[in-house]
Amino acid sequence: MLFTFRISTDRSLSFTDISSKVKKYIRESGCRNGIAIIFTPHTTAGITINENADPHVQDDIAWKFRDLIPPDESEYLHGERNSHSHVMSTLTGASVTLIIKDGNPLLGVWQGIYFCEFDGPRMRTIHIKIMKDVE
Amino acid sequence: MLFTFRISTDRSLSFTDISSKVKKYIRESGCRNGIAIIFTPHTTAGITINENADPHVQDDIAWKFRDLIPPDESEYLHGERNSHSHVMSTLTGASVTLIIKDGNPLLGVWQGIYFCEFDGPRMRTIHIKIMKDVE
Amino acid sequence: MLFTFRISTDRSLSFTDISSKVKKYIRESGCRNGIAIIFTPHTTAGITINENADPHVQDDIAWKFRDLIPPDESEYLHGERNSHSHVMSTLTGASVTLIIKDGNPLLGVWQGIYFCEFDGPRMRTIHIKIMKDVE
Repeated sequence: MLFTFRISTDRSLSFTDISSKVKKYIRESGCRNGIAIIFTPHTTAGITINENADPHVQDDIAWKFRDLIPPDESEYLHGERNSHSHVMSTLTGASVTLIIKDGNPLLGVWQGIYFCEFDGPRMRTIHIKIMKDVE
Repeated sequence: MLFTFRISTDRSLSFTDISSKVKKYIRESGCRNGIAIIFTPHTTAGITINENADPHVQDDIAWKFRDLIPPDESEYLHGERNSHSHVMSTLTGASVTLIIKDGNPLLGVWQGIYFCEFDGPRMRTIHIKIMKDVE
Repeated sequence: MLFTFRISTDRSLSFTDISSKVKKYIRESGCRNGIAIIFTPHTTAGITINENADPHVQDDIAWKFRDLIPPDESEYLHGERNSHSHVMSTLTGASVTLIIKDGNPLLGVWQGIYFCEFDGPRMRTIHIKIMKDVE
């Protein structure tokens, strides 16, 4: 089963919590046990799992990403001035894989699923592919 | 099939080889061909695959992670003083996916599976989800 | 279904577009809907998804990786002088997971699949595991 939804981001670098959307689609699928792939088809974005309680954690990750990989370094050759966003995308990855147990993603109590915007603001697409257990 | 086990870590930043545990659970599952997701439900930890021979490689990765992402930078806002651990978790990822062939993970001769502790020492949990081929 | 192929790389750090090979094997498998795991069994290499249009993007990612993680830092203990390659491998990851829809990988228009060489030139191996939907 495959679901697709869109979100809009409002900053150049941000983390959007998509956990409740992901849980909703897993419930809709009727899958009790299996896995879910959360995949974004963009090359200046990513998907990650991180802390869902204190929003300062997302701010801190954003600060450190920019600190390590600032925009507009003079060595970049690509003309769109978003090479740093492509580097961040490869470091984060385009997808995460979740375990589904008893109809829910098997996440830690502090884990949320985040869309990572590295070249916003933009409209962005996210796919959710659900694979059921054979048994 | 789903297995869960716990490990204890003994340093703030360390890599624990969990390859033999993972192989044991794959054997127990009886799965001959498919995939295995090794997932950790923590936001200051990760799972990676890297060299299993010279332990200096793990020391070197730990040194470089700390060099790039030191603790206690003054820009961090999160009050628990482990923002660097959250950054490392997003860079490494919460899971790896293994191919199972003839009852074993299809790993290179130098590849081991490691639990990455970024905010230890602690007790930590690891899930192994096994998906069998349909055929 | 499992496919394996080899490529040769010609530089110490490079990104090789393997998208057409991956698409060919997915077609050969006859799988219409499911997922594909692209996995490399090396500890100084990786697999990533990034921009497939302007080759400068790969050059820029290579430059930034070397900028952050230069070879031959004096703190490295491992004797093979490729500790930086192992760090890059953990940051990138040994695999990517693709969604298969109607016989093709569900990729964005700008997304290509890349083998990441971090310690070349060498001959390298890539596995493609295809998991079909149950339904």
